[in-house]
Amino acid sequence: MLGRRIAHQAGRLSWRRLSLGETRQWSATQTRPLFTKTPRPSPIAPQSRQRGVKDSSQRPGKLFGLGGGQVARLSGKPLPQTKSRLLNFTYRAAALFGTTIAVLGTGVVAFFLYDASTYKSHAENAECHVSQLALHPRRGGPKNLPILEVFIDDEDSEEKQKQKDKPRLVILGGGWGSVALLKELNPDDYHVTVISPTNYFLFTPMLPSATVGTLELKSLVEPIRRIIHRVKGHFIRARAEDVDFSSRLVEVSQVGVDGKEDRFYVPYDKLVIGVGSVTNPHGVKGLENCHFLKDINDAREIRNKVIQNLELACLPTTSDEKRKQLLSFVISGGGPTGVEFAAELFDLLNEDLTLHFPRLLRNEISVHLIQSRDHILNTYDETLSKYAEERFARDQVDVLTNSRVAEVRPDCIIFTQKGENGETITKELPMGFCLWSTGVSQPEFCQRIAKKLGDSQTNRHALETDTYLRLNGTPLGDVYAIGDCSTVQNNVADHIVSFVRNLAWKHGKDPENLELRFEDWRAVASQVRKRFPQAVGHLKRLDKLFAEYDKDQSGTLDFGELRELLKQIDSKLTSLPATAQRAHQQGQYLAHKFNKLARAAPGLRANEITDGDLDAAVYKAFEYRHLGSLAYIGNSAVFDLGQPGWNMAGGLWAVYAWRSIYFAQSVSLRTRLLLAMDWAKRGLFGRDLMSY
Amino acid sequence: MLGRRIAHQAGRLSWRRLSLGETRQWSATQTRPLFTKTPRPSPIAPQSRQRGVKDSSQRPGKLFGLGGGQVARLSGKPLPQTKSRLLNFTYRAAALFGTTIAVLGTGVVAFFLYDASTYKSHAENAECHVSQLALHPRRGGPKNLPILEVFIDDEDSEEKQKQKDKPRLVILGGGWGSVALLKELNPDDYHVTVISPTNYFLFTPMLPSATVGTLELKSLVEPIRRIIHRVKGHFIRARAEDVDFSSRLVEVSQVGVDGKEDRFYVPYDKLVIGVGSVTNPHGVKGLENCHFLKDINDAREIRNKVIQNLELACLPTTSDEKRKQLLSFVISGGGPTGVEFAAELFDLLNEDLTLHFPRLLRNEISVHLIQSRDHILNTYDETLSKYAEERFARDQVDVLTNSRVAEVRPDCIIFTQKGENGETITKELPMGFCLWSTGVSQPEFCQRIAKKLGDSQTNRHALETDTYLRLNGTPLGDVYAIGDCSTVQNNVADHIVSFVRNLAWKHGKDPENLELRFEDWRAVASQVRKRFPQAVGHLKRLDKLFAEYDKDQSGTLDFGELRELLKQIDSKLTSLPATAQRAHQQGQYLAHKFNKLARAAPGLRANEITDGDLDAAVYKAFEYRHLGSLAYIGNSAVFDLGQPGWNMAGGLWAVYAWRSIYFAQSVSLRTRLLLAMDWAKRGLFGRDLMSY
Repeated sequence: MLGRRIAHQAGRLSWRRLSLGETRQWSATQTRPLFTKTPRPSPIAPQSRQRGVKDSSQRPGKLFGLGGGQVARLSGKPLPQTKSRLLNFTYRAAALFGTTIAVLGTGVVAFFLYDASTYKSHAENAECHVSQLALHPRRGGPKNLPILEVFIDDEDSEEKQKQKDKPRLVILGGGWGSVALLKELNPDDYHVTVISPTNYFLFTPMLPSATVGTLELKSLVEPIRRIIHRVKGHFIRARAEDVDFSSRLVEVSQVGVDGKEDRFYVPYDKLVIGVGSVTNPHGVKGLENCHFLKDINDAREIRNKVIQNLELACLPTTSDEKRKQLLSFVISGGGPTGVEFAAELFDLLNEDLTLHFPRLLRNEISVHLIQSRDHILNTYDETLSKYAEERFARDQVDVLTNSRVAEVRPDCIIFTQKGENGETITKELPMGFCLWSTGVSQPEFCQRIAKKLGDSQTNRHALETDTYLRLNGTPLGDVYAIGDCSTVQNNVADHIVSFVRNLAWKHGKDPENLELRFEDWRAVASQVRKRFPQAVGHLKRLDKLFAEYDKDQSGTLDFGELRELLKQIDSKLTSLPATAQRAHQQGQYLAHKFNKLARAAPGLRANEITDGDLDAAVYKAFEYRHLGSLAYIGNSAVFDLGQPGWNMAGGLWAVYAWRSIYFAQSVSLRTRLLLAMDWAKRGLFGRDLMSY
Repeated sequence: MLGRRIAHQAGRLSWRRLSLGETRQWSATQTRPLFTKTPRPSPIAPQSRQRGVKDSSQRPGKLFGLGGGQVARLSGKPLPQTKSRLLNFTYRAAALFGTTIAVLGTGVVAFFLYDASTYKSHAENAECHVSQLALHPRRGGPKNLPILEVFIDDEDSEEKQKQKDKPRLVILGGGWGSVALLKELNPDDYHVTVISPTNYFLFTPMLPSATVGTLELKSLVEPIRRIIHRVKGHFIRARAEDVDFSSRLVEVSQVGVDGKEDRFYVPYDKLVIGVGSVTNPHGVKGLENCHFLKDINDAREIRNKVIQNLELACLPTTSDEKRKQLLSFVISGGGPTGVEFAAELFDLLNEDLTLHFPRLLRNEISVHLIQSRDHILNTYDETLSKYAEERFARDQVDVLTNSRVAEVRPDCIIFTQKGENGETITKELPMGFCLWSTGVSQPEFCQRIAKKLGDSQTNRHALETDTYLRLNGTPLGDVYAIGDCSTVQNNVADHIVSFVRNLAWKHGKDPENLELRFEDWRAVASQVRKRFPQAVGHLKRLDKLFAEYDKDQSGTLDFGELRELLKQIDSKLTSLPATAQRAHQQGQYLAHKFNKLARAAPGLRANEITDGDLDAAVYKAFEYRHLGSLAYIGNSAVFDLGQPGWNMAGGLWAVYAWRSIYFAQSVSLRTRLLLAMDWAKRGLFGRDLMSY
């Protein structure tokens, strides 16, 4: 309505001929006095007549059925009529803003009404049934610890009561893989328990932005309890210590307020291990002088350290040399994390520092990026690596390639650099801050598990699974591993050869003398495709492969030739990257499979099928689809879309695109809203240079 | 334009007689086909005719001068005309929302354009002059430490260069008082330096809200550097250790990265001490088991502790008894901080806990508030105290009045409570969390200063100033103290008696034999009013006071009688409360005075006046105006407006009012925006139960 009022005002102002009294009447009926009181043509009329407008000012006023004294509101009445272009323009412009304000105002009022409804004024002390077994759990298992068979909230709601007898799905860790699983899993099929030492999910790809205050820490995290709400799951904030695969128990520990560690067992029917990875120290001395960037506390510590160094650099007791050392920021590791942190740090120093800190600081700051390979972002397309390096060179970020850190001391970093002639030079770089982001390594828990499983686990860096993501060496369908802590075994040759061997025996043939014709090879290849979706790309020209490996040109492949062919495919398959993308896809894969398994369960039970390769029976093998990689490199971003030539790099538009992608991938509406606010805040107020 | 388009669509839908081709034409010229193609009266026309509307459907189509094929945009052209009420209603409604979306869309695009302009793509390495004296400061002073005479950013800009020779105003502390001073001080008059161990200003009154995640920590803080930007000031993150009043040097310390403490001097012309207060331990044993609520880290620690206790209470290894202990939250101190924290805690437990935690927890939680006085909020009007107590009783917050904490143990709190018959009973309360908020005490720095000033400082709890806020015992006009660390001395009797004595001597009379007539008393009273504005309320009935204290009914007051009268006024003046409000007013007072002093300086210099009571010469004495107190007590709030009977207490409306007041008082646009976002977030998503 405000818009309409403004329009009246505007009309009154531009139509000065009317006296105040007349104007009042006009503002009520809008058009009437205008027509009745203006027998002569208006000064604007001739102009409009020139454009072929028929003058209508001679016609009677009550043209449009507005009774006197009625105020025009949002109604079905005819619209007001004047032929003054200025008046109409003013009317339309005022209406445009007025209605906006009116609609926004209505929105604000509506929000306040909604908000008022969210306050609970009375304490809710509903009755609550808790099983005695939940309060006093039975002891058992190899170590005679309490076993968490019944939860204290198992009878909190009807839905939860229904889940009591469902298969127990226990998920270790609350990262990308686990959350993807939780978001895709059908509610009601499983009794879900998540065990993690942190009670939030962290949106890791944007962590570098949080270190300098571009984003708030809070915008990157979502409580796990809120995520499991949909599947009516349970959460235990504790650390997984060990798994007893025969009695299907996870051993869990938690330190109480009194500093004493308590341990107990959590039983499972299906266990998903998604505990992630730890920073790889690469055996370098003095890493206690470095910062890492794995969780939210790291980000806060980094921010405080950066600001502390800036503050100390302002003090009169700080010598010139010391100031340069304090303001020398070193990043070891030229992967996406290191590069994005360097970019964010540069943004902070470039955009916000100069506003509020002495200029001298800006002039004495240096940022160094130490990378062991030829290029930074070496997993990306080379054009992108070069783009990033050029960008950094322009921004005066010192990129030191072919360099390996030998030792980190409290005030300097010692590294070796390969010279142009291949000689190794040892250099020393004074530093006030060092970020260590050089790849990942296996957490203690995984090492313990791998050792227990003996020969079936041969990879020193991650837990090996088959292509159905089942942990090798454990009973089929019991234990799965996803994300950074796992790797999918690419033993195409071994698997298929033993498969063919079995097939041969079954048909009463001696496998050693087996000869595969082209049709047989086609059948084997389709088997490979099914079990190892990653190998599809290498099985496109079957005839060519057949001809190539049929060394004796016999028109058939013998056993040795087949093995050679498959081994060659094996060697081409690289292990999956330790990225959020892979963990996410693996989590989704498991969720879809678990949903299928739950649906298939009644039929399987009816047929008394409880063992065997159920996973393979109900669902395809896991296939990783690389959707591309992206990185922020300081007011510009690079995108590697995974296919040769499909690369993009650019300035601000790329930054907005980069943000849009993460905005879309963000875990909840809440985090999206917060991200948008944070970015807007950066634009409006800059970053906050505060440490607390 | 979107709105207009929608209107066309709506028009087409409701006017089915028109064929598609005709409609297209109509949507271009809007009214023409409608009139030309409808020679017979429309079905709605008779209805409108009944209401005295003249039918206009017979008139030719080009009525309003819109040429064929023209699309109506935001222009001065006449508005479209139909006489269908439905069509018009649809048109108006669609236009309403359409224009809103259009204006909002324009706003978003505008913001993105603005945002894009905030990225600096090139490193700015401007030349920068730094004086050698700033890089290598001269040593001196009693301890031969470096003296910060020139700052490294003194020549960063022209404005800063101009300030180099202005009087040096050094402010210790960055709290309410200091920030009020900085916000009111004229730029360019002083060379301002703020010294504080924290580089942010904290909006303390809302700190309890931050402990449970209703507000973000970040929304309550503003960087000091941003606040001093207006006065082109300097900031040093360091701790004031001592002041040398004779050589006008502040001794400052800061611990460097290597853990070594550096000390240096900061010279001043005017020094403002606003270092605040520390928690009062009241000599209670075991306070290391308590949490405090003074700064932002305290708030975070409290939040983490509360959530940790909730998480531990979920574990199967936690016994029933232990769970009750973990969930027993105790607050010692029934002042505003304690009460608001109890209220916020209750909100968290009541509104958010039950959604995501087992129900059992909600049933076993208890909140206890221990208060040494008869009532909680004892500085407020009694009706408000009672309202708060009733509210808490309803919310099952256990209020224990007349109770004193004797000892805090790791798992329980021991306190004594006065029984109904005056006997003292010792009680034990198991607890999992204890907040200690029982008043304030003097920081070490102030104790050191007070000791140095000897007899002129007699108050053990705060630094004493005169009514011009000058620190007693220091050279006039050199050192001021404001906020919690200070108290304004109410020695009306001493001051005025010595004033009268001086006056008597000057007039050649013996003060011991002085007799004041009523007119003399009036003059003295006006002198009291000027110097002690707080006493005004007690000087209203001068005649009555005169008669009362003229014991011998002589018609005159002798010296002894005057002293008695003034002492009685003294006793009525209470010391000022240790609140943000007082500090704020004191900071503003100093700013106004310093502005006046700077303006008066040229004249004083010309007259060679450099000493003496310049403060009194240029500006009135400080007068505290109590604007009232307010407190949040859990979905309701109380307001004590300082006058008897001017109290308010209520539910949600009071909460919104409470928020509005703090919203308005908030330090910057940035914090206001963040506060509004936080409150909206609470309504939309609830509080976040995460600990990190």
